[in-house]
Amino acid sequence: MSIRVGIIGANGYGGAGLVSRLRAHPEVELVALASRQYLGQRIESAWPQFAGVVDGTFVDADEAVAQSDVVFTATPHGATAPMVKAARDAGKRVIDLSADFRLDAATYETWYGPHPHPELIADAVYGLPEFHRDELGGAAIVASPGCNATAVILALAPLAAAGGLDEASASVVAGASGAGRGLDLGLHYTELDENARPYKVAGTHRHTGEIEAALGRTARQGKTVASHGERAAFRLAFNPVLVPMARGVLATALARAPRELDEAALQEHYRDFYRDDPLVHVQHDLPQTKAVAGSDRALLSVRLDARTGTVVAMCALDNLGKGASGQAVQGFNLAFGLSETLGLRLEGQWP
Amino acid sequence: MSIRVGIIGANGYGGAGLVSRLRAHPEVELVALASRQYLGQRIESAWPQFAGVVDGTFVDADEAVAQSDVVFTATPHGATAPMVKAARDAGKRVIDLSADFRLDAATYETWYGPHPHPELIADAVYGLPEFHRDELGGAAIVASPGCNATAVILALAPLAAAGGLDEASASVVAGASGAGRGLDLGLHYTELDENARPYKVAGTHRHTGEIEAALGRTARQGKTVASHGERAAFRLAFNPVLVPMARGVLATALARAPRELDEAALQEHYRDFYRDDPLVHVQHDLPQTKAVAGSDRALLSVRLDARTGTVVAMCALDNLGKGASGQAVQGFNLAFGLSETLGLRLEGQWP
Amino acid sequence: MSIRVGIIGANGYGGAGLVSRLRAHPEVELVALASRQYLGQRIESAWPQFAGVVDGTFVDADEAVAQSDVVFTATPHGATAPMVKAARDAGKRVIDLSADFRLDAATYETWYGPHPHPELIADAVYGLPEFHRDELGGAAIVASPGCNATAVILALAPLAAAGGLDEASASVVAGASGAGRGLDLGLHYTELDENARPYKVAGTHRHTGEIEAALGRTARQGKTVASHGERAAFRLAFNPVLVPMARGVLATALARAPRELDEAALQEHYRDFYRDDPLVHVQHDLPQTKAVAGSDRALLSVRLDARTGTVVAMCALDNLGKGASGQAVQGFNLAFGLSETLGLRLEGQWP
Amino acid sequence: MSIRVGIIGANGYGGAGLVSRLRAHPEVELVALASRQYLGQRIESAWPQFAGVVDGTFVDADEAVAQSDVVFTATPHGATAPMVKAARDAGKRVIDLSADFRLDAATYETWYGPHPHPELIADAVYGLPEFHRDELGGAAIVASPGCNATAVILALAPLAAAGGLDEASASVVAGASGAGRGLDLGLHYTELDENARPYKVAGTHRHTGEIEAALGRTARQGKTVASHGERAAFRLAFNPVLVPMARGVLATALARAPRELDEAALQEHYRDFYRDDPLVHVQHDLPQTKAVAGSDRALLSVRLDARTGTVVAMCALDNLGKGASGQAVQGFNLAFGLSETLGLRLEGQWP
Repeated sequence: MSIRVGIIGANGYGGAGLVSRLRAHPEVELVALASRQYLGQRIESAWPQFAGVVDGTFVDADEAVAQSDVVFTATPHGATAPMVKAARDAGKRVIDLSADFRLDAATYETWYGPHPHPELIADAVYGLPEFHRDELGGAAIVASPGCNATAVILALAPLAAAGGLDEASASVVAGASGAGRGLDLGLHYTELDENARPYKVAGTHRHTGEIEAALGRTARQGKTVASHGERAAFRLAFNPVLVPMARGVLATALARAPRELDEAALQEHYRDFYRDDPLVHVQHDLPQTKAVAGSDRALLSVRLDARTGTVVAMCALDNLGKGASGQAVQGFNLAFGLSETLGLRLEGQWP
Repeated sequence: MSIRVGIIGANGYGGAGLVSRLRAHPEVELVALASRQYLGQRIESAWPQFAGVVDGTFVDADEAVAQSDVVFTATPHGATAPMVKAARDAGKRVIDLSADFRLDAATYETWYGPHPHPELIADAVYGLPEFHRDELGGAAIVASPGCNATAVILALAPLAAAGGLDEASASVVAGASGAGRGLDLGLHYTELDENARPYKVAGTHRHTGEIEAALGRTARQGKTVASHGERAAFRLAFNPVLVPMARGVLATALARAPRELDEAALQEHYRDFYRDDPLVHVQHDLPQTKAVAGSDRALLSVRLDARTGTVVAMCALDNLGKGASGQAVQGFNLAFGLSETLGLRLEGQWP
Repeated sequence: MSIRVGIIGANGYGGAGLVSRLRAHPEVELVALASRQYLGQRIESAWPQFAGVVDGTFVDADEAVAQSDVVFTATPHGATAPMVKAARDAGKRVIDLSADFRLDAATYETWYGPHPHPELIADAVYGLPEFHRDELGGAAIVASPGCNATAVILALAPLAAAGGLDEASASVVAGASGAGRGLDLGLHYTELDENARPYKVAGTHRHTGEIEAALGRTARQGKTVASHGERAAFRLAFNPVLVPMARGVLATALARAPRELDEAALQEHYRDFYRDDPLVHVQHDLPQTKAVAGSDRALLSVRLDARTGTVVAMCALDNLGKGASGQAVQGFNLAFGLSETLGLRLEGQWP
Repeated sequence: MSIRVGIIGANGYGGAGLVSRLRAHPEVELVALASRQYLGQRIESAWPQFAGVVDGTFVDADEAVAQSDVVFTATPHGATAPMVKAARDAGKRVIDLSADFRLDAATYETWYGPHPHPELIADAVYGLPEFHRDELGGAAIVASPGCNATAVILALAPLAAAGGLDEASASVVAGASGAGRGLDLGLHYTELDENARPYKVAGTHRHTGEIEAALGRTARQGKTVASHGERAAFRLAFNPVLVPMARGVLATALARAPRELDEAALQEHYRDFYRDDPLVHVQHDLPQTKAVAGSDRALLSVRLDARTGTVVAMCALDNLGKGASGQAVQGFNLAFGLSETLGLRLEGQWP
């Protein structure tokens, strides 16, 4: 008996990735795609790739909630919390791709403003399965992480868990789909083609708070983390750059090298740390985003810059795979007691 | 009991697509990846996306033949025929992605020079399943079509089958992967980025002969075609342009409009013609390559330019999907009596 | 004593190209940049490349007219004619980059609807200098041609002028900037990247009428053409494709081969035809858009497809150079009795 | 009376940029283009953009030296020093775009191996005009800086000059042309398109030594620097990423914030520091590479990340403009007593 799934915000990039993964998922029946913008229009009006493949029309959020056992919300922060509330009130479970349930109420307020439904936060598990696998089983709300956040957290967590680290810096090179499908001159093809453009630098990017919280928890709790458990202070200098590609996040994180580890030991520590995680691969070769395009896996590599005493940890992932839809399905699988990688894709599409 | 499959030329783009599709194919055991260039090296040395996913090293072609029930050859024309011969001598069946068994000996000689093993041509079935489904069952050699050829044939075949057409023109916009993974200044990123470049124009592209043969057979035989049956004369003015994208072929074919059809009737004829073909979709909207990126399906649309009395038939496909690896697996499925779309992907990855 | 120039629509891509060329033009004083959208804002708010280079703020169209001897209008068709009227009423000359004065009133109506100011059409000279050089001197209104139109006309005019040709087909591969700077989902980076997309096919692109008119005049009048002189009937099957690049148009035009010319004679005819045109270069090598990126020159090559009796004529140009701003300045130079190439650039920026 | 200039390595991207700038330079007669690879071939065989624009054929290096007053060497490090020696022995001055004369002999050996002609190093002036303007006049050898080095040095020098800074980190996002025109699988269009790839991370990139030396000199000497003067120790953690664009370098540099400056004071310090430098522009808006594409200017912006006590200094430049050919011509202008910006371009080509 399959699980009935609805997707709210099915007209966005995150939504499209959910449709692809869930329509082929062996334990899922995809029953409703909701979109306010395309309400009543056929699916292929938003998504030419589904012409002749996915029939029917977009419905509204209420209908998606009504028809489903679980809803995936792929809608903007702030607007999502009320929809999650409605779904919970109807007794449905939620996999949320927005930022609305990733942070405690105080941290949320710092970065996003007052939380619309703080009473629901205690029901949410942070959906980074590599750290929260144990508490994801049966979760009422899975708060799927941000794409940049996932990359930076995966890159630095082995160091944070090793102890003694309370600050780091990270730059991220990001493709355009991370900024969504909205109309914006900066995302016009002619403006972004052949252009590299820093954005939200110097501590203004909202994923900063999410990363600091996650690394602070890891620093305190280790590899297995409780979403609402204790955390240490952690400071991140975070600076992203938008580059001309549709998909992909490449994080380069720098931290003070632990005195006791040489490069080989450092690499061994990283491999050990993620040894049992099927969707994280630690390798010697430097990671590239093309190797993860369309995939639900992250690639990691770590080097020691002995001249400056710096660890350089790099993570490549597809912002729409391990960074969004794929990770959300991974969280869903665990929340529903299914095999973690069901319906997911390990290898990128090269070329 | 699964079918043991080997891939020769597994270091090329066609090869990578075969590995992805066949490693996940429920009736296949992928037993050997052969590459002369990467012989003895680990798979991820050629393909970073398979690090931690596909273990082992590249073997040589002989070993791939020895271990397999069927071999896929994704190697250059001319060099492939002797490998097909060796596989056939060893009693193995072959799915060939090269040009070596797509043409009769005389036509082959016109476009490629003398055929190395003309005695094998009679055993080959042209692997365009939409037309050759009946004869593909049990085929010893499946000669999988070229990417440009597939797009132009699919676009024009409904007109050719309708009778009275013996010439047409077609332009093709093609992504870089169609030219392979070899080192060539014209394929250097810096040279092709922001560049559109015609190549092999004015009757010099070798797919011209393949397209003319296929449309000539359709003009004579109709929708169901025998590879070695009769064909009518057909002349194609074919002109391709290389553009800055990795994947994708968009064919725009022009032909004299049949007197008796208006645009609606023309579109209806196209829909009828491909009604039973799961990997061809005829639609009103103009086809785009992004809608088929990573997929094994072709999208078609047809319009009537009444001012000039011209039919404009367009086809979009992924040169590495329906244009290569996907179509080869489709041919394999039919040759082995499996469901035609097993292991294949209908929708493109958007974005 | 320099000519005072104003630009209306200086916030569009055509406008930016005009600013670059005219601010460095030795006979020009650039006195006013007008933009409705950016009115009152600093120039770098629209154009980051001019930060610290071009001072001041955008003004309105009236002020641009008042301050100038000549205005360049780089605004949408329909909206432009009234601005041209106002400028003419103020006694100013106009270089118009819109479609509003390229066609006779009847042809304009067919493609664009009723002309807002048909009484001004007689004062306009079609600004394709290679054919209209003689009548451009002193012109009150220069109607600068469209980018696709320029490429197709240049490719086919030598054949049209040779006589006996009354139809042809042309496909065009075009970069995104040709569609302007407006917000449109189809021009979003994530949507156009790795995508080739036909648009306005089968006789629906408005440049079709402009090309047919120009080639019809050439067929009747030869190399030197009067804008309002006689023309022959000419039919063009025109089909453009949008591809992922910012700049560039590559036209591939097909026409029935004249019986009497072999390929060498055909190429010689093309070279002769454009021998005295500094901004058109006929070459044996196939033209590429990168070779003209940022330049004001068109590259042409012609081949004979003897198998099908087809001439294949190709033209590459920068849609913002020879296809827009560059050609407008070329027309301006001739209209004001200056050297034709003053302020223009011959070579593309490679890479 | 114009200066006779020859270019050695005219078949590379740096060479092409030199040809464009110098053929239009009012004080230069471009007399010889040398290339070993294209020796005896016509210029357009290497550079399609110069067809019909630059006549003649490539000569060898000896001939270029013989015919010129000054030679520009745009050839690989190691191979260049002997050519510089030959030119100097012939009494010619040299503008060198390679790494061979940028470092003192000991530092050179650390990063590149033993220097082929250490006796010439004393005659070389480091060609970063913003710091070495005074000593460039009359220089026998101008050692033009690397592209990444220029961006990082310009970003951090105002902090280094302010005193108290002896370490920093910098990431660079770089386009493909910086890696040259050689054949390399990693630079194949299909491999780099839609790919972001770290390279030479963790202290292995050779520009690291060049940047440390320059910032160490600035830390000791201030804004005006003597190439062979004293320098302080400086440590840089440098990590570059290759991204899918042809041109452009965007550096993001992080350093400990000076206690006494808030963001406004920091920005004011940067503006003051470069106030008299025509090819460096300090602005509030974040810099983008498109704004400098094809230009010879660098754009800088600086922000304070108060949460972490970090200065974020960003620099965008065209690696082939201010990062190579443009800066070499700027150095040439100063070496020959000409106006610093002669023949150079301030604004980028947008789009």
